[in-house]
Amino acid sequence: MNLQDVKTPSLVLDAGRVRRNAARMSERVKRLGVELRPHVKTHKCVEVARIQTEGQRGGVTVSTLGEARAFAARGFRDITYAVPIEPGKFDDAIRLSGACERLALITDDASVPPLLDEAARRAGVRVDLFLKVDCGYHRCGVEPDSPEALQIPRLIADAKGLRFAGILTHAGHSYHARSHGELLEIARQERDVMREFAARLRAEGIEVPTVSVGSTPTTTQVDHLEGVDEARPGNYIFFDAFQATLGSCSFDDCALTVLAAIVHRDRARRKIVIDAGAVALSKDRGAADIDPACGFGRVLDLEGRDLGLRVESLSQEHGALHVEDEAVFDRLTVGTRVRVLANHSCLTAAQHSHYNVLEGERVVDRWEIQRGW
Amino acid sequence: MNLQDVKTPSLVLDAGRVRRNAARMSERVKRLGVELRPHVKTHKCVEVARIQTEGQRGGVTVSTLGEARAFAARGFRDITYAVPIEPGKFDDAIRLSGACERLALITDDASVPPLLDEAARRAGVRVDLFLKVDCGYHRCGVEPDSPEALQIPRLIADAKGLRFAGILTHAGHSYHARSHGELLEIARQERDVMREFAARLRAEGIEVPTVSVGSTPTTTQVDHLEGVDEARPGNYIFFDAFQATLGSCSFDDCALTVLAAIVHRDRARRKIVIDAGAVALSKDRGAADIDPACGFGRVLDLEGRDLGLRVESLSQEHGALHVEDEAVFDRLTVGTRVRVLANHSCLTAAQHSHYNVLEGERVVDRWEIQRGW
Repeated sequence: MNLQDVKTPSLVLDAGRVRRNAARMSERVKRLGVELRPHVKTHKCVEVARIQTEGQRGGVTVSTLGEARAFAARGFRDITYAVPIEPGKFDDAIRLSGACERLALITDDASVPPLLDEAARRAGVRVDLFLKVDCGYHRCGVEPDSPEALQIPRLIADAKGLRFAGILTHAGHSYHARSHGELLEIARQERDVMREFAARLRAEGIEVPTVSVGSTPTTTQVDHLEGVDEARPGNYIFFDAFQATLGSCSFDDCALTVLAAIVHRDRARRKIVIDAGAVALSKDRGAADIDPACGFGRVLDLEGRDLGLRVESLSQEHGALHVEDEAVFDRLTVGTRVRVLANHSCLTAAQHSHYNVLEGERVVDRWEIQRGW
Repeated sequence: MNLQDVKTPSLVLDAGRVRRNAARMSERVKRLGVELRPHVKTHKCVEVARIQTEGQRGGVTVSTLGEARAFAARGFRDITYAVPIEPGKFDDAIRLSGACERLALITDDASVPPLLDEAARRAGVRVDLFLKVDCGYHRCGVEPDSPEALQIPRLIADAKGLRFAGILTHAGHSYHARSHGELLEIARQERDVMREFAARLRAEGIEVPTVSVGSTPTTTQVDHLEGVDEARPGNYIFFDAFQATLGSCSFDDCALTVLAAIVHRDRARRKIVIDAGAVALSKDRGAADIDPACGFGRVLDLEGRDLGLRVESLSQEHGALHVEDEAVFDRLTVGTRVRVLANHSCLTAAQHSHYNVLEGERVVDRWEIQRGW
């Protein structure tokens, strides 16, 4: 099968680029002397995670218990669910921890350990629980110098139904860095906040089995990771227009595109409409701060060459492009196929049921996406 | 089951409001003297479509061949696929037209009728094909005074494998009307453009079986629909924060919310994080032009009362709120559940696998969402 035979809209995954991105990051974390625990939220796909964890211990990070369930059922034994746990998910999480060797949870709230301890003891299990730390992103996590930063690890360490797994952070603010210098500073901050905090906990007599950090930009840029045990980058496996615009990768590293067909053309308005709309692409604005003309994705031909066009507006099943160049407009007849490099690969992938796996010019496989919660 | 027992994040559908919205629109189109052919893209759900088409002829409009397939398999016999057809979908569409009594397609491109005619004749079927008309929205459709506006109906009428189904438009620009007067003007434009154009086609000897219009705002506001045969509103069945802000409905008419749990709180920053992020809510900006503070949705308590909070930012599985009021902050402990009235119900629904159906305070059923293409 080739790209002319695949339904539109649908995802096209360049397997060669996936393998290359995986090998580079694997090599990188090896040099940094830490374990790789890739975040599978980017792809939600067992086959992709197998490529990422080749030659690694096999641990993964998930963003939903749905991902944890699907990955545990398909042989992944060591999973960290990296969104703070809340009581409504205790039963599911405890059940799931029996379906693999280790499902580690995270918290940053002092109300959680006693309640989770009770639920775990009732179920007759012991649950691994990380303290989520805020290293400067300010989305979730405790500040390392707050009273809770000592109180919560003690609560966990003292609870019979819990095991203190260590400390975990995510420097999500690295996505907003405006220069290489700023990014390097955030990467060092992520590392230094965590190793200083680990030292303080240890000085207080609290054992810290794992210091976990990670984002694609910081793992790629940091100068060393001494004092850190594992990194959890995710986006690097596909990259996207956002990361390429930020300079985290080249456009040739981007592995995921959306195959689309032209359904409408209006020569007077120089307008083309494709069948990839908001549902197929997602409405993520990407790097709009840096590149206000980025729209909702770059339009490539079937061979992956940039046509110099952007998806300018989206409705549910329509994506609109403006095509000033007459020769390009002439080529884009109804039925012609293009590929869209979307702004944010994680959100685009989450809209679809599967990947069409491309090796060279052939579609050789179909890999399922494990959606839902 | 009640809302404390349902997983988060997930969709909650207020069945009473769905029935009320359906009855109002049914009554409205009856008074207007046209058929109702609701657009099921809003919900992609057979049970909801059955409520919408009660007492009607049962025709529906779909936005994907995936919806057409799922609805045909579940007893819907008369389906219009209202995105312009392109050659890559001919085989699927022709196969599907055999699975129901009538699958009508639309086109606005002169290259399509001869190709579709050939495919239909090869398959031994006759395909219903509408001309898509631009009544002022400028997304798709031919201008009624262009040469193609006469050429395409003639091509269709003369083709042995095709049947000219009539003319169809969508006044999507009604969503951007800034006043009731402006909206009424667009609604009249949608009607008048179509009936004048139908008269011209008929004067040219072309039979026009159906004149089809429709959007929720124009169907709700138009003063009469003489000369029109059917209306295809969609969003009215759920409404959403966008439509309520525009004044198309009251906030009490909105039937769809996302159930979410609080996973993080930061008293110093007055920040709360819920487990409904970009995947659960979609990143639609809604009525940001009119209400720049609308964020990504309104936060309600479990009984549906507005807490006066907005989802201010989204990442994949996190939604962040700012909670200035200390008493409200105190109530929102980790594990507390809220409901989010999202900006755009169509895009929010398309993110999920099913609805949890609420009757009063009880969750009484689970209705599947037919995703995919």
